Amino acid sequence: MSVTADFEAANQQYAAQFTKADLPMPPGRKVLILTCMDARIDPARALGLSEGDAHVIRNGGGRAADSLRSIIISQQLLGTREIVLIHHTDCGMMTFSDEALRSKIRTELDESAEHFSFLPIRDLHQSLADDKALLQKSELVLDVPITSYIYDVKTGAIHKV
Amino acid sequence: MSVTADFEAANQQYAAQFTKADLPMPPGRKVLILTCMDARIDPARALGLSEGDAHVIRNGGGRAADSLRSIIISQQLLGTREIVLIHHTDCGMMTFSDEALRSKIRTELDESAEHFSFLPIRDLHQSLADDKALLQKSELVLDVPITSYIYDVKTGAIHKV
Repeated sequence: MSVTADFEAANQQYAAQFTKADLPMPPGRKVLILTCMDARIDPARALGLSEGDAHVIRNGGGRAADSLRSIIISQQLLGTREIVLIHHTDCGMMTFSDEALRSKIRTELDESAEHFSFLPIRDLHQSLADDKALLQKSELVLDVPITSYIYDVKTGAIHKV
Repeated sequence: MSVTADFEAANQQYAAQFTKADLPMPPGRKVLILTCMDARIDPARALGLSEGDAHVIRNGGGRAADSLRSIIISQQLLGTREIVLIHHTDCGMMTFSDEALRSKIRTELDESAEHFSFLPIRDLHQSLADDKALLQKSELVLDVPITSYIYDVKTGAIHKV
């Protein structure tokens, strides 16, 4: 059963009450948030964002290595000058290894994913430190403030690290 | 002036009212949404999502080529079986060419980005068709329903294409 009818119905309500027709393209608060795709995280509600405030980049784990294209565009073309990096407790990225996922893909899809790193996470402090360092070392990323948090999916709270 | 104090204050309020402590890791609605990082888009409000419903992957343009790692993880490890692809009007990805952005990076950062494709968009119907085709052709992506929409930043409405 597809979710699209529900999404379309909810969107009709949203559009009927929409008052943000004239927001500029560049994020008003000049910040980009990088976090996980995890279904339990709602960055806008959890951080008090309104439409127009911030770029939000999301991928499996909220990993920087997978976000460089978007971060460069955000900074070079749309003026963001701050990065907020949020990884989270009970992350799916902590439940597997590259070799385990490659093996699952070999077995179930009969395909090779040897060329892929899925960027699994062992420790959240380490993944945040690694991703901050990757951004700081990249010559294509501006030297801007980077603040790192762990989001607790049990409490909804962010904890600065 | 960093936004982090504001984010932390808003998050204290969010956490104080948080009632979703026991959500499972897999998305309840078995769907992944792929859309742009654009600050004007709030996928949860625009589609009626609650915490726990859906994986949300976001990058510059909502491009599939930049999302394969996350999509494979979402399907193989966390059970999503539907994809909703949303590109949008007035997208920043329609304002530049790869060569223009590479040139800006050469001039302003004194760096080469010749190895990067920034995945700019000329036409939203084409970018949605290209990204749907890329997912359908990838042997590492399951054959699941893919529904494509254009989100109108002037009205808040999604339009199926």
